[in-house]
Amino acid sequence: MDTAADSTAMGRAITLAARGLGSTSPNPVVGCVILDAEGRPAGEGFHQRAGGPHAEIHALRSAGEKARGGTAYVTLEPCNHTGRTGPCAQALIEAGVSRVVYAVADPTPQATGGADTLRAAGIKAEQGLLADEAEAGNAAWLTSVRLGRPYVLWKYAATLDGRIAAADATSRWITSPESRADVHRLRAEADAVVVGSGTARTDDPQLGVRGVEGAAQPLRVVVDTGATAVRPGARVLDGTAPTLVAVAEDADTGHLPEGTVLRLPRAATGPGLDIHALLAALHTRGVRSVLLEGGPTLAGAFVAAGTVDKVVGYLAPVLLGAGPAALADAGISTIAQALRLEVTETVRIGPDLRITAVPGPARKGN
Amino acid sequence: MDTAADSTAMGRAITLAARGLGSTSPNPVVGCVILDAEGRPAGEGFHQRAGGPHAEIHALRSAGEKARGGTAYVTLEPCNHTGRTGPCAQALIEAGVSRVVYAVADPTPQATGGADTLRAAGIKAEQGLLADEAEAGNAAWLTSVRLGRPYVLWKYAATLDGRIAAADATSRWITSPESRADVHRLRAEADAVVVGSGTARTDDPQLGVRGVEGAAQPLRVVVDTGATAVRPGARVLDGTAPTLVAVAEDADTGHLPEGTVLRLPRAATGPGLDIHALLAALHTRGVRSVLLEGGPTLAGAFVAAGTVDKVVGYLAPVLLGAGPAALADAGISTIAQALRLEVTETVRIGPDLRITAVPGPARKGN
Repeated sequence: MDTAADSTAMGRAITLAARGLGSTSPNPVVGCVILDAEGRPAGEGFHQRAGGPHAEIHALRSAGEKARGGTAYVTLEPCNHTGRTGPCAQALIEAGVSRVVYAVADPTPQATGGADTLRAAGIKAEQGLLADEAEAGNAAWLTSVRLGRPYVLWKYAATLDGRIAAADATSRWITSPESRADVHRLRAEADAVVVGSGTARTDDPQLGVRGVEGAAQPLRVVVDTGATAVRPGARVLDGTAPTLVAVAEDADTGHLPEGTVLRLPRAATGPGLDIHALLAALHTRGVRSVLLEGGPTLAGAFVAAGTVDKVVGYLAPVLLGAGPAALADAGISTIAQALRLEVTETVRIGPDLRITAVPGPARKGN
Repeated sequence: MDTAADSTAMGRAITLAARGLGSTSPNPVVGCVILDAEGRPAGEGFHQRAGGPHAEIHALRSAGEKARGGTAYVTLEPCNHTGRTGPCAQALIEAGVSRVVYAVADPTPQATGGADTLRAAGIKAEQGLLADEAEAGNAAWLTSVRLGRPYVLWKYAATLDGRIAAADATSRWITSPESRADVHRLRAEADAVVVGSGTARTDDPQLGVRGVEGAAQPLRVVVDTGATAVRPGARVLDGTAPTLVAVAEDADTGHLPEGTVLRLPRAATGPGLDIHALLAALHTRGVRSVLLEGGPTLAGAFVAAGTVDKVVGYLAPVLLGAGPAALADAGISTIAQALRLEVTETVRIGPDLRITAVPGPARKGN
């Protein structure tokens, strides 16, 4: 019995939720809109940071008495447990709302049950409105809950013929300033940015977010198996944000600052570290979403491990005919083993194209 | 003083002209619409094949007496010379039209002057309406007139990471049936389809047009420098269309059918043939547009020679991480030498993306 007003309110809640991307881990992003008994806007809010009030609490505070007899629209099932904040289901009951519409059920064992609590209190609780949109907005967190590891978005920038640099390794300005600014937005939405030793050695990247207002700085992670790429004075060790240098258990790390070293087992096959162990270690530290910024060898290891959840490629209208490719050594030797994706979006970013793709349905749940 | 009716009529003429693509060489594609003295549709036509009537003649025949006092809309300046058919300017004068609107001036020395002839007969002749659209529709022919060589469209099909095959050379079904059907449309619009020896050897392609109603079969050209790739019984030698095997002047061609061998000088640098000599030889044979279907080495030679006028890439949402790239050996070793293009179109073709790009303004006139 969802009306256009219901959809509008939930759409607004999804938009609000997205404003928390990059700041709420290990919590999900959540938005909430409250309409009063006559269907007029009464309040709204979103979850801004872990430890702070949930979206429902922000919305109830802004609605005040107008919430009584009204409807609350929430992108995720209201929680039922007392964590660092009280249970939202109880707060909604106490505020006297008569109906709660939520898009996606909460899959976490400790938080689930909010809808049952609401119904037991005589409140109408309905699930499913704009569920696909709400799920997409929370893809990182939902994936991390379901798979027990951070959601991984692999970003690359290449020429039309798939090169990330020229034969002499020069690569500056392959993509446009507009594309590079867009990457900072991706960084701002991620909990951690991960690069490999090749990128660290060649580019000495700082990996911070620049030019995105109010952005939280992500954890910076360099996979430097032999502990040879990140040297004292590297820009990634500056004070912008915490940094982890992931190294093999036997690596010599005397030159690295205390607290930056993350020791991990080597991969069972191939030259690098165990990708699943890396992701597990990040998950333990509260990282729910990873922006993998390559280069090709590390990206290949992630693809080979089956741990790429989304691909964002910035394609510059440039031809080189030589130079390294965007992806290497993914363990694929014949066309039948190819990783097949589905394009979900294509957008012009300045002169470039941004292509977004996700693994095809056949691989879902991997 | 162009009105909406003028633009509508010229737009229709441009659409009509496109129906001749692939069938009119060495002539341009041309469309013509005639409105009567009251502005009502009186007749229309397009140039269908070299040696046949020009667009204006088709349109005047269908208009009959209704052309008198009316306006003729033509995508190209009416010709002024007697070739295999009489001059169109004269035919328009005799039919009694009072106004001729044409989009693009005829750049060929022997045909130009049609507008002057019309004006001398007291007919209003106006140039420039929808000139950009008409020019784009005739890009192949106009380029060939201006540069004295065929227009070259390079088509490739690759994965998101720029691979045209897997590491073991398997490549079937990288792109979708929809994309492969679209390539047949490109073939139908071209005067010649060109591949290299690697493609001939690996794929044994037939290179004919299938599934495009009324399509003319293009000339099939294999660049087989050493005359080792095209063997007796190769599908490219079947009866579908004429075939040329371009070989080095000293190649042993005893195994090739008479009339198929085209001897050319070798490239001054690199392993293949002189690309400019190849294009000149095709131009002499009336070829005004070439669809270059690769592979990477031949495409690289064309890019290195500065003879790629348009790029159409079919990108499949697939990752491989190994295998040959779409473009090789283009003589570019550093990023400053990269060939920079401008994306003119991005379209979904089934699950794939088709990206069209042309060399940037800086290179125009090359």
